[in-house]
Amino acid sequence: MKLKEIGEFGFIDQIRSKFADIGTKGIFGIGDDCAIIDANEREDWLVSTDLLIEDIHFIKNAITPEQLGYKSLAVNISDIAAMGGTPIGSFLSIAIPADIDVAYLDSFLDGYHKLSEKYNVPLLGGDTTKSAKHLAINVAILGSVPKGKARKRSMAKAGDAICVTGTLGDSAGGLHVVLDKIDISDEARFLLNKHYCPEPRIIEGFSLRENPSVHAMMDISDGIASDLMHILRASKKSAQIEIDKLPISSQLRYESARNNWNPSQFAIGGGEDYELLFTVDSQQIADLQHQFQSKFNCGITVIGSIAEGEPQIKWMLNKQEISYKAGGFDHFVKE
Amino acid sequence: MKLKEIGEFGFIDQIRSKFADIGTKGIFGIGDDCAIIDANEREDWLVSTDLLIEDIHFIKNAITPEQLGYKSLAVNISDIAAMGGTPIGSFLSIAIPADIDVAYLDSFLDGYHKLSEKYNVPLLGGDTTKSAKHLAINVAILGSVPKGKARKRSMAKAGDAICVTGTLGDSAGGLHVVLDKIDISDEARFLLNKHYCPEPRIIEGFSLRENPSVHAMMDISDGIASDLMHILRASKKSAQIEIDKLPISSQLRYESARNNWNPSQFAIGGGEDYELLFTVDSQQIADLQHQFQSKFNCGITVIGSIAEGEPQIKWMLNKQEISYKAGGFDHFVKE
Repeated sequence: MKLKEIGEFGFIDQIRSKFADIGTKGIFGIGDDCAIIDANEREDWLVSTDLLIEDIHFIKNAITPEQLGYKSLAVNISDIAAMGGTPIGSFLSIAIPADIDVAYLDSFLDGYHKLSEKYNVPLLGGDTTKSAKHLAINVAILGSVPKGKARKRSMAKAGDAICVTGTLGDSAGGLHVVLDKIDISDEARFLLNKHYCPEPRIIEGFSLRENPSVHAMMDISDGIASDLMHILRASKKSAQIEIDKLPISSQLRYESARNNWNPSQFAIGGGEDYELLFTVDSQQIADLQHQFQSKFNCGITVIGSIAEGEPQIKWMLNKQEISYKAGGFDHFVKE
Repeated sequence: MKLKEIGEFGFIDQIRSKFADIGTKGIFGIGDDCAIIDANEREDWLVSTDLLIEDIHFIKNAITPEQLGYKSLAVNISDIAAMGGTPIGSFLSIAIPADIDVAYLDSFLDGYHKLSEKYNVPLLGGDTTKSAKHLAINVAILGSVPKGKARKRSMAKAGDAICVTGTLGDSAGGLHVVLDKIDISDEARFLLNKHYCPEPRIIEGFSLRENPSVHAMMDISDGIASDLMHILRASKKSAQIEIDKLPISSQLRYESARNNWNPSQFAIGGGEDYELLFTVDSQQIADLQHQFQSKFNCGITVIGSIAEGEPQIKWMLNKQEISYKAGGFDHFVKE
């Protein structure tokens, strides 16, 4: 049997069941953005790891080494943000093909360092090795969160509002700026920057974890169609999403009109936005939005609601239910 | 400038100096087998990560998937053993080319699980993705050690005896069994097993960390010629090694005689033995050897001594100094 027949998440389920027999006292493992580990009386620690492979996750000629270094760390810091945590340190493993020179690596490290410095995340170790052909980068990240405050995917409650930070689909727009080779307007540049240099929502995550009305949380890496399903399966709930409420930036609207893109499609299935997707007690949403607006330069948008029921998403457009061919990335299923 | 001109360790030095400005309070980072992190009043935590790339670290047709799974975890558990620690959990990232099927991965996970179960190390997370061509495996491991008891490379003292657990060169012998396509005798099978399924020295590491006469420690991944230099540079000491005292297994002696191999060369520069290399107060060595012999089925051998002086190794054979062309693996320097 080929892997694409069971898919990435099917394979992860197989791994999970195979290793379920090995005890994990005080530890929550596979299934959230990070593992949660009982470290001391004040803190739980968080660990996550991400592997980026040339020609799968990035095309070397389409991303500068600085951007690649920045993004390699950003997607990991975002996993810590997804639980409401603070990054403690990172570990960089890199497999380097023979045709890459020291100047390229130095620029890669500059990009990685830029974000490390911004969030005061020391580089604590890693591994360097040759690669036969492709550049491969693995970042492992360690973080902490005040005891019991980590937000998990399993915490959604019926009646919760489903919210996201910022805007959705910009990263997919940026990718299409490259793929479609469109002219670089200011708007296109904005989208490219969102694609190559996503800003992990660390400080927003702090604020959300301190708010008891915020229940489930994760970051958006594969697109809400795929990511929200993780929350629904873990929480054993269903959801309704109002497509016309998805927050779309003016820049994505502008370039979508010019290039005949469907911005809702990008927002739903594009992925790599690294915004936070979370559920909130619907009674508290107005307060939370107000508080957020005054503290951060990114808003919170309610895009739907959680209900009892089988894990599935009902997609609504102009108050009509529409069928949406589930997208988001599944790395092994033929798209 | 190409990477091979500065070498793997030159590159690591560049990384270390670039990131030296980002604070690491309570943390020891790059330079040991693991980072050491102040977790709570009783424990320090250890983190290490290793990246294995097809056609660099292994040839897919020359190692079974079970062996590959086992070894991927073994080399990481060995990094925890190198500090005297206990593994807490592992994180597996794997990039999978399209031609690999589910049965291969299932066997890989069986091998990984076998060792996870033996040392009760839960799999806490990871990442799965497609790969364009080569299989790439990154394991990150988390461990703990009683407060202040982790052994570092910088702890060697002048006058210390240099010791190793077990025997050296068996893994290199096993590699040559494959490369030279020799007949599979019982001895060859022993060497192959040491190459494919090294036993991390976890319980031996516990015993050594509890002994205050044991100073610097690390595991042998690249061969003592290369690995001992890490201890010497970190401790700012020199060393003398008695080549005729290197512990060589009867199996390696047998196959070396049959195949015209130099077993000392394998012991010095072969690497992947995953034995512990450590320095001990020379007054205490007899006690330690006695204690070890009764507790474990691997011995301790004194192979040389530490002295004041510039970091370099004086190689002695039959009481004569000989020149040894520094070997061990350096992944980017042309051998």
